[in-house]
Amino acid sequence: MNIYDLDTPALLLDVARLDNNLQQMAAYCKRHKLDLRPHTKTHKSPVIAHMQIERGACGITVAKLGEAEVMADAGLTDILIQYPIVGEAKLRRLVSLAARCRLTIALDSLLVAKWISQAATEAGVEVGVRVEFDTGFRRCGLPIVPESIPQVQAIQALPHLRWDGISVYYGHIMGDPDSRIAAIAHENEQLDALYALLAAAGIDHSKVSGGNTPAALQSHEFHSLTEIRPGTYALQDRDMVDAGAASFADCALSVLTTVVSTSVANRAIIDAGSKTLSADGLLSGAKMHFGYIVGFPDLRLEDLSEEHGHILLGEGRELSVGHRLRIIPNHVCTCVNLHDRMFVVDGEEVVDSWRIECRGKVV
Amino acid sequence: MNIYDLDTPALLLDVARLDNNLQQMAAYCKRHKLDLRPHTKTHKSPVIAHMQIERGACGITVAKLGEAEVMADAGLTDILIQYPIVGEAKLRRLVSLAARCRLTIALDSLLVAKWISQAATEAGVEVGVRVEFDTGFRRCGLPIVPESIPQVQAIQALPHLRWDGISVYYGHIMGDPDSRIAAIAHENEQLDALYALLAAAGIDHSKVSGGNTPAALQSHEFHSLTEIRPGTYALQDRDMVDAGAASFADCALSVLTTVVSTSVANRAIIDAGSKTLSADGLLSGAKMHFGYIVGFPDLRLEDLSEEHGHILLGEGRELSVGHRLRIIPNHVCTCVNLHDRMFVVDGEEVVDSWRIECRGKVV
Repeated sequence: MNIYDLDTPALLLDVARLDNNLQQMAAYCKRHKLDLRPHTKTHKSPVIAHMQIERGACGITVAKLGEAEVMADAGLTDILIQYPIVGEAKLRRLVSLAARCRLTIALDSLLVAKWISQAATEAGVEVGVRVEFDTGFRRCGLPIVPESIPQVQAIQALPHLRWDGISVYYGHIMGDPDSRIAAIAHENEQLDALYALLAAAGIDHSKVSGGNTPAALQSHEFHSLTEIRPGTYALQDRDMVDAGAASFADCALSVLTTVVSTSVANRAIIDAGSKTLSADGLLSGAKMHFGYIVGFPDLRLEDLSEEHGHILLGEGRELSVGHRLRIIPNHVCTCVNLHDRMFVVDGEEVVDSWRIECRGKVV
Repeated sequence: MNIYDLDTPALLLDVARLDNNLQQMAAYCKRHKLDLRPHTKTHKSPVIAHMQIERGACGITVAKLGEAEVMADAGLTDILIQYPIVGEAKLRRLVSLAARCRLTIALDSLLVAKWISQAATEAGVEVGVRVEFDTGFRRCGLPIVPESIPQVQAIQALPHLRWDGISVYYGHIMGDPDSRIAAIAHENEQLDALYALLAAAGIDHSKVSGGNTPAALQSHEFHSLTEIRPGTYALQDRDMVDAGAASFADCALSVLTTVVSTSVANRAIIDAGSKTLSADGLLSGAKMHFGYIVGFPDLRLEDLSEEHGHILLGEGRELSVGHRLRIIPNHVCTCVNLHDRMFVVDGEEVVDSWRIECRGKVV
């Protein structure tokens, strides 16, 4: 089937671009002796997770316990949940999952670690733990201060937990080369301070996990990282192009849409709004329109209603009702999360359709 | 089951508030002899659509053909698709659907009407059509100019289409009373000009559909409206409170969340981010935080990551890991669209769980 026979809106996955993105990141990590544990929240697809493992990833990262369950059902065997697990219902599911795959949790409090340890002990399973430190993003993570050390030592002493080192998340490092250099230098100061604290207390920090897509190919410049967890790199998006971390030719996911109305002057309305693309603007705050229209760099997707995309046409420009357009979303993670499946394409040929199996796994 | 036994994040639907919202709007419409055709894109639930019909709605509105199919499967019999239907695949589905319910399409071009007429003729079915005019929102709709009239007449002459009058969408009318009065006056100027054009051409405009939630209870002030299509009123949200169209006590949908991290100073992180609440800011642009924390009007949901909500704690304020909070989303339509089900609650008692059956029906 040709893509133009698809009903729209539809997610198109260019499998050659995907493969290239996966291979490049795997090669980079191999070259720099970094473990690659891709964050699968971007694609939410076990098929792509398996492709990542086949190309050398050591395991996968997920954000949700429900995503981990789907991935384990699909045969993924080494899963990191980069999220504190809280609540009775989740703890029961967690220890059940730990009985059937190598499971690790990133957490940032003794309280959460105690709950997991108790549940794991009762179930007779082992759960890996990584302690997250905050290097400045101010989301999760213990502060890098001496008062955090006793918490880490107490976590290490808990039964049925497997120590798996340190985790950090430094947010999005982007912008011009000078500001990236400055941001990495700042991050290294934080990491050095953290390592000094841990070393003084005799805490094993031979494993340090960090990273995301914008600065992924500079991960070797961060001090003593042993693992990175980029997600977006698999598909890339306009944010990553804007951040200088990808080109539009790397973007493996686009949204096929149809022009449905041109009745209002200087506008073309497409059948992709915020319920199709997500309303995320660009991370950088720059050029606040809502996606890149492939082949029409001069046209602007000016506004989104829930089911309408508003394209601003310049003077003398026309689009016809029925015309098909491909949009590269600003933020591919939140876009994919709105859909149940993606169509796998080789050029304009539709070769397969993959369910986005982790979508909707909110708990 | 008590709501505090639910795993989070979870959508909670207060059924008493829902019922009250539905009854009030139905009573208003009855009082003013307006047909009520609720837009079901807000809740995407056939159960709620049936409640709306039982309370006096004349039929329902949907945005997507896929939503219409789900609603028809669930026994809804009078469905308006407020969206131009374009493309071969959709036309085949459209005429199949028209064979099993009373189906009407709002459209704004002769081209789309011709495609539908041809498909309906071949299938031997009848499809209702409404012609949309643009009164200033600049999305869909023919311009209110004499040149539009021949298009309308040509649409009326097409076979197998049932003329169902005129449709307008005037966007969100909100703000202080003076600006609302001015906006309604402006809208009435547009409507009067439209009616004059249609009357001069002898075009039947005895049916005029408009409206949405912010100005729904002022619909009788718009000239000659015979039907309104509000959606959000069923659940209400922070946008409607901000617009003066509801109070927080009317908001029937909230998101139950859990505090998962308090390690960073002056922050509490909850398990509801943009993949749970949607990243929509407020329509008015005011107070750009991401939801209202029930019972904590002084706390701000300052930022959203995909799976983290960042609550800013004032000096001396504390929240504990494990603490449950209820969030009223800024925009309930895009929030509900992220979930597969909602838990129906009576106070703190969970009495049922309803699938959000139209979610994901993107085509």
